[in-house]
Amino acid sequence: MALQPKRTIDELKDLRALTGNADGAQRVAFTETWAKARAWLREKMEQLPVEIETDEAGNMWYTLRGEAEKAMLIGGHMDSVPNGGWLDGCLNVMAGVEVMRRIASEGTPPVTVRLVDWADEEGARFGRSLFGSSACSGTMQPDDLRNLADKSGIKLVDAIAEFGLNLDTVKQSGKQLKNAAAYLELHIEQGPVLESMNLPLGVVLGTFGVERHAIRFTGQSAHAGSTPMDKRRDALGAAAKVALEIREIGKRNGGVCTVGSVVTKPGIVTAVVGQCDITLDQRHLSADSLATMLREAKEASERFAKEENVGMEWSKLWEIAPIPFHPDLIELCDEAIKETTGGKSHRLPSGPLHDAAEVARAGVPTIMMFVQSLRGLSHAKEEDTKEEHIAMSVEALDRLATKTMKWIASQR
Amino acid sequence: MALQPKRTIDELKDLRALTGNADGAQRVAFTETWAKARAWLREKMEQLPVEIETDEAGNMWYTLRGEAEKAMLIGGHMDSVPNGGWLDGCLNVMAGVEVMRRIASEGTPPVTVRLVDWADEEGARFGRSLFGSSACSGTMQPDDLRNLADKSGIKLVDAIAEFGLNLDTVKQSGKQLKNAAAYLELHIEQGPVLESMNLPLGVVLGTFGVERHAIRFTGQSAHAGSTPMDKRRDALGAAAKVALEIREIGKRNGGVCTVGSVVTKPGIVTAVVGQCDITLDQRHLSADSLATMLREAKEASERFAKEENVGMEWSKLWEIAPIPFHPDLIELCDEAIKETTGGKSHRLPSGPLHDAAEVARAGVPTIMMFVQSLRGLSHAKEEDTKEEHIAMSVEALDRLATKTMKWIASQR
Repeated sequence: MALQPKRTIDELKDLRALTGNADGAQRVAFTETWAKARAWLREKMEQLPVEIETDEAGNMWYTLRGEAEKAMLIGGHMDSVPNGGWLDGCLNVMAGVEVMRRIASEGTPPVTVRLVDWADEEGARFGRSLFGSSACSGTMQPDDLRNLADKSGIKLVDAIAEFGLNLDTVKQSGKQLKNAAAYLELHIEQGPVLESMNLPLGVVLGTFGVERHAIRFTGQSAHAGSTPMDKRRDALGAAAKVALEIREIGKRNGGVCTVGSVVTKPGIVTAVVGQCDITLDQRHLSADSLATMLREAKEASERFAKEENVGMEWSKLWEIAPIPFHPDLIELCDEAIKETTGGKSHRLPSGPLHDAAEVARAGVPTIMMFVQSLRGLSHAKEEDTKEEHIAMSVEALDRLATKTMKWIASQR
Repeated sequence: MALQPKRTIDELKDLRALTGNADGAQRVAFTETWAKARAWLREKMEQLPVEIETDEAGNMWYTLRGEAEKAMLIGGHMDSVPNGGWLDGCLNVMAGVEVMRRIASEGTPPVTVRLVDWADEEGARFGRSLFGSSACSGTMQPDDLRNLADKSGIKLVDAIAEFGLNLDTVKQSGKQLKNAAAYLELHIEQGPVLESMNLPLGVVLGTFGVERHAIRFTGQSAHAGSTPMDKRRDALGAAAKVALEIREIGKRNGGVCTVGSVVTKPGIVTAVVGQCDITLDQRHLSADSLATMLREAKEASERFAKEENVGMEWSKLWEIAPIPFHPDLIELCDEAIKETTGGKSHRLPSGPLHDAAEVARAGVPTIMMFVQSLRGLSHAKEEDTKEEHIAMSVEALDRLATKTMKWIASQR
C-alpha cells in the first residue's frame, strides 16, 4: 500500500472537527477533549498490526515489531494549547501514522518501528511543558511539579491521577527508550524562516540553548517637571540602551536576543523612572556563542548602568544548554527533503523546545524536520501550512524513515 | 514688632504635631484633619486686625485693610498629600502669617494685604489639583469635576458639600481677585537645582508649559526563539530609541523631557514586543521652545517607527501653555533674595504647577520664590529644608512684600 499524504490532511481535518471549535483546537492535555482525540487515534491504529500501551507518564506507544529489537521512534503530541492551531503536534503524529501504515503494508520491517504520542507537550494547563517526554528522558524532577495547579486551583497531581498517573512513578516510563536507536519528529516551523526563503521543508540542526535573565536598573524617581535633565538618574535610560544593544549582540553572534518585558516604576507620566525591570532571553545553537552573547550583554549592561549612574542587578530565570541533533540523521533528513522537493533544503535551528530535545538528552540519536508555517504563526487558530507542503512533509518523513531504518540496521 | 522667622519654624513644627503622624502630614483637603489645620490657623489670625472670610470655593481669606483698596496677596495651601512633607504648602501660609504680623504691627499699610489659604491645591483625594485657585481664576470647568470620586467611592460634590460648597457656585470666588494688584507665593523647590548650586533661595520665572502625550508603537509579537533578528518588527526597538532621543531633545532645547511609563505587550520573556505604549512629558518656560521640542519628538518617533517597520500613533493627554511671572516682580524678588543672602540669587522655572500659576492666568501680576529642598524630595515624609534656609525664606518674603507694596502704590 502506497503512502497517501492526502489521507493525512483529511484526518487532520477530521480531528479538527472532532476536537476544535470556532476558536481553534481544544485538546488541552488531561482533559476530556484530549482523551477523545487519543481514543480517535487509537481506533485508527488498532487497524494496524501494532501493540498499544500507555506508559507511566501517560505517553501512548504504538509498536510495530520488526526483525530487530532496535527501534526507530516517530513522535508527536495530540495535546494542544487552548485555542490552538490544527497542526501543532498532531501533524507529527498523523504523519507518523501514515508512515507506519506504509511500512506495515510491506510486512515485517527490518527494525522495530514505534509511534509515540507524548503526554502534555504544551504544558498549557499547569505551566510545565514536555511533561511526558521529560519523564521518559529522566530530566524531570517530579517534586518541581508536585504543587502545580491550574487556574481553577486543580492540582496537577489530581488531574493526572484521573488518567491513572502518579508523579512518584512517571519516570518509570524511561524504560520505553531501552531499544531506541533513532527518534524522528516532524513539526511545523512556528517561525518565519522557511516561508521567507520560499522553501517547504527544512532540517533542524538542534534546539537552541537558552539564557533567560531578569535585569533590574535602580535610579531615582524624580518629578518630571522640577528635575533638570543633568540631575536625573533615569533607570529607563540604561534599560533602553540595553534593549537596543542586545539586538546587535544577537545579530553579531548569529543568535537571537529578546527583551520581551519592560516594567517602569513608579510608571507615571509625571515621574522620571526610578526602577526599571526588563527580561532578557538569549538563544543560540552553539554553547560557546551563547556564552559570548551572555558575556556581551552583561558587559553592555554594566557599561550603560555606569553611564546612567544607576544600580543594576541580574537574576537568572532559566537556562538550558543547546541540544544538537545527530549528524548522521541531519544528513539523512537533508537527503529525504531534497528527494521530495527536487533539491531544495535548508538547515536551521529550532527556537522552541520540542519533545525531540528531551529524547536527544536521553542519548537517543534524534532529528527533526520542519515544514513551513504561514506567517510564522502558531499557538493560535490562525496557524496554518499550505496543504501541498503538508503532503510533502509526510512524503519526506516517509523517505527519512526508510533511510533511518537502513541506518539503524547498519549500526553494530 | 520685628519679624520672627524662628516663630514660623516653631509653628510649622506645631502644625506637624497636630496634623501629622509617623508617616507624614495628613492634611488631605476636605477631611477632618484639614479642617483642624485651618481652625488652628484661624485662631492665630484672629489675633491680628484682619477680616476673615471663606469664599464659594472654600478658599480662606485673611484681609488686613490698607490705605488703598488695591491688594497684595500672599498665598499658600494648608492641604497636603497623604503621608506628605511638613513644608509643602503650609510654609507658604505660615511665612505669610509672619509677614502679616510684622506689617500689622506697623499700623495701617499703604495697600491692603491679604493672606489666602487655597482649598485643595494637591488634588490628592479626587485627582484634581488647584481646586480653589482654578475656581477663583475662572479656568475651572465645573462639569469636569462633577463625576470625580475618591477611592472609597465618595463623590467630590458630596465631599465639598460637607464644607458648604457647591460646584455650581465655586467660580463666584473669582470676585476675590477684584482689587488684586500682586500675588506672592513662597514654596519649597521640590527639585534639586538650588541644592546643587548650594543656594538657599531662587526667583521663579514662571511655570513650565507642558505637552503630555501617549505614544503607541505597533509591531508584531513573535516567538523569541523561532523569529530571527532580521524578521522582527520589534515595537520596543522604536520605543527605546524614542526614550533615549527625547532626553537629547530636552537637553538641546533647555527644557525637560520624560518618558515615565513603558508598557510592553504581550510583555513576556519569550515574545518579541508586539505593542509598546509609552508616555511623553515635555516642559519648557518658552512656548516656542516647547513647540520645537514637541516637533522634534514627533519627527524622531516617525523616523524610528520607519526604521523599525512598526506603526505609531500619538494621542494627547494634556497640555498647558507656559505661564511667565511678572517681570517687575521678578526683579523685586531677586533684590529681596540678594539682600537676604548677601548677594546670591538664581532664576529658575517651576516644573510643577502651583496656585500662583492660576492667579497669573487670571491676569494678576504674580511672582514665586523657591527655597531649597533637600535631595529634591517632596510629597513624602522625607521632604525637608534646612531650618536656616526656612528662616531666610521668611525674611526674603518679608522684604519682597515691602518692595511689592511700594511697587503697587507706585502704579497708576
